[in-house]
Amino acid sequence: MRIGIDIMGGDYSPGAAIEGSLLAQKNLPEDTEVVFIGNKQVINDYCNETGIDISSFEIIHTAHAVGMGDHPLKAYKKHPDASIFLGQKLLKNKNLDGFCSAGNTGAMLVGAMHITTPIPGVIRPGISSTVPNLSGNDSIIIDVGLNPDARPDVLYQYGMLGSILSSYVFHIEQPRVSLLNIGVEREKGNLVVRSTYQLMDQNDDYNFIGNIEPNSLFTADNADVLVCDGFVGNIVLKEAESFYKLISMKNVCPDSFEMFNFENFGGTPVLGVRAPLVIGHGISNAKAVKNMINTTSQMVEAELSEIITEKINM
Amino acid sequence: MRIGIDIMGGDYSPGAAIEGSLLAQKNLPEDTEVVFIGNKQVINDYCNETGIDISSFEIIHTAHAVGMGDHPLKAYKKHPDASIFLGQKLLKNKNLDGFCSAGNTGAMLVGAMHITTPIPGVIRPGISSTVPNLSGNDSIIIDVGLNPDARPDVLYQYGMLGSILSSYVFHIEQPRVSLLNIGVEREKGNLVVRSTYQLMDQNDDYNFIGNIEPNSLFTADNADVLVCDGFVGNIVLKEAESFYKLISMKNVCPDSFEMFNFENFGGTPVLGVRAPLVIGHGISNAKAVKNMINTTSQMVEAELSEIITEKINM
Repeated sequence: MRIGIDIMGGDYSPGAAIEGSLLAQKNLPEDTEVVFIGNKQVINDYCNETGIDISSFEIIHTAHAVGMGDHPLKAYKKHPDASIFLGQKLLKNKNLDGFCSAGNTGAMLVGAMHITTPIPGVIRPGISSTVPNLSGNDSIIIDVGLNPDARPDVLYQYGMLGSILSSYVFHIEQPRVSLLNIGVEREKGNLVVRSTYQLMDQNDDYNFIGNIEPNSLFTADNADVLVCDGFVGNIVLKEAESFYKLISMKNVCPDSFEMFNFENFGGTPVLGVRAPLVIGHGISNAKAVKNMINTTSQMVEAELSEIITEKINM
Repeated sequence: MRIGIDIMGGDYSPGAAIEGSLLAQKNLPEDTEVVFIGNKQVINDYCNETGIDISSFEIIHTAHAVGMGDHPLKAYKKHPDASIFLGQKLLKNKNLDGFCSAGNTGAMLVGAMHITTPIPGVIRPGISSTVPNLSGNDSIIIDVGLNPDARPDVLYQYGMLGSILSSYVFHIEQPRVSLLNIGVEREKGNLVVRSTYQLMDQNDDYNFIGNIEPNSLFTADNADVLVCDGFVGNIVLKEAESFYKLISMKNVCPDSFEMFNFENFGGTPVLGVRAPLVIGHGISNAKAVKNMINTTSQMVEAELSEIITEKINM
């Protein structure tokens, strides 16, 4: 298995990406190779300066990179061979089995739509993340930002994508799929959510358990998959981030809340595209990069894209 | 000033409402009277049992009450004189200057639309709440559940209602009104939020400062008013509730996070109706009821409904 990593992406590149790759390599199976995509000169300079030995890594060179503040589509038109796009081309041509980047999220998504491309039958891909839970059984939330205006049929499919991720990557049997809502009754919510409830109710594709309100989001083990549009999902994640900031600033037992530390998070899979793609948080440190590479390898291992292709067209 | 309180509403009625009224009475100005709306028999039984002296309170009797699980509109049709509706009738007839209830939120809102009624010119009333902030400068969030499908013109007006509340009740000069969004750039968000940005930008009615992401919601003093639709606002509040549960369950310094304890919250004003109405959380304890009565009295004092009537039609 060959996992490509965008060495130029993220607030702490190239250091976090290089050091995270070294950490990841230690625990990955022998037949799994981490491939660097980036500027050879920049990579070698960093390693010479820090004395890090990366002789066991293949480097695929490109002189270009997308900056964190660059306009995604303009960047793609100007430098279609920038590392974040080149990685996806290599993925598409099967030179890589999975690809991850902590770089410009918009650019990653432009690549997801134009290079990696959606699986036929998937209306709109989505990005998922993890919601920590006191019980230890974290849930998956989908979508967390790709589609701020998701229609009911898209939300219905998110239930399916989330259920497949939960069952094939996190090995949950019959994942409990719920709709994130402002009340538990079926008539609660906005128009889109109420229509989605009707589509999800008694469906044959996955185990829909109804609406979940977020007032026990972190404490009650109620659901394995939470479905919402990308606007709401992104708000939920960012509010959780603010909570962790508050805990850290108050300096009260932050260790107990380490599960909320998004710096350590291993990236969010793009679900519904033809090959494994994982987006890391811009602020990813080496540990987060290690976890992101692991998540990518788990997705390849689980043959997630193949399973989604099969199930979505059943 | 006469403040009516629904003694029959809330999970801990009539006890919390009666005891909260006694607490409130101690700090209210002498010319402010708290009036009980509810079943005289139930009230007297409770006071006889507990030895509480309520001889200084006027009781306006009604035999009916809306249960927390009752269907709001059906309840209104069946018992239009139930305490939560009777209070609003007395308010409308100027027998009361303000009214509050920790009872069935849906019933309170049915009353708001059919009895108290919206101020002419207000497209849709909204309900606001407080977002605690580490700086001590809490913000107002509007709407937190009344309109899960708010249109851009409604959100625009929410900016105005929030700004008036912030300036006339919380005495903030030139309140900073922001749009709760998933990015700071103007082109970020869903269709409704993007259109709202265009309406709010460079408006003459209030001080719009742009988009705010919730990742510093509790830690950065960025805005005085956060505008969002009732779906998103309700999700934000309930997620905050979940944090507090988590903190309490982990038992790590919960005192530091008392600002998140919604049991103490003094209710959420319904903005845009013809007279001061405040809705309390169902789980309100006596302290919360006291705060709810205080909030109602502040709204009456500030002549909020009159100011909104004037400003909205300027």
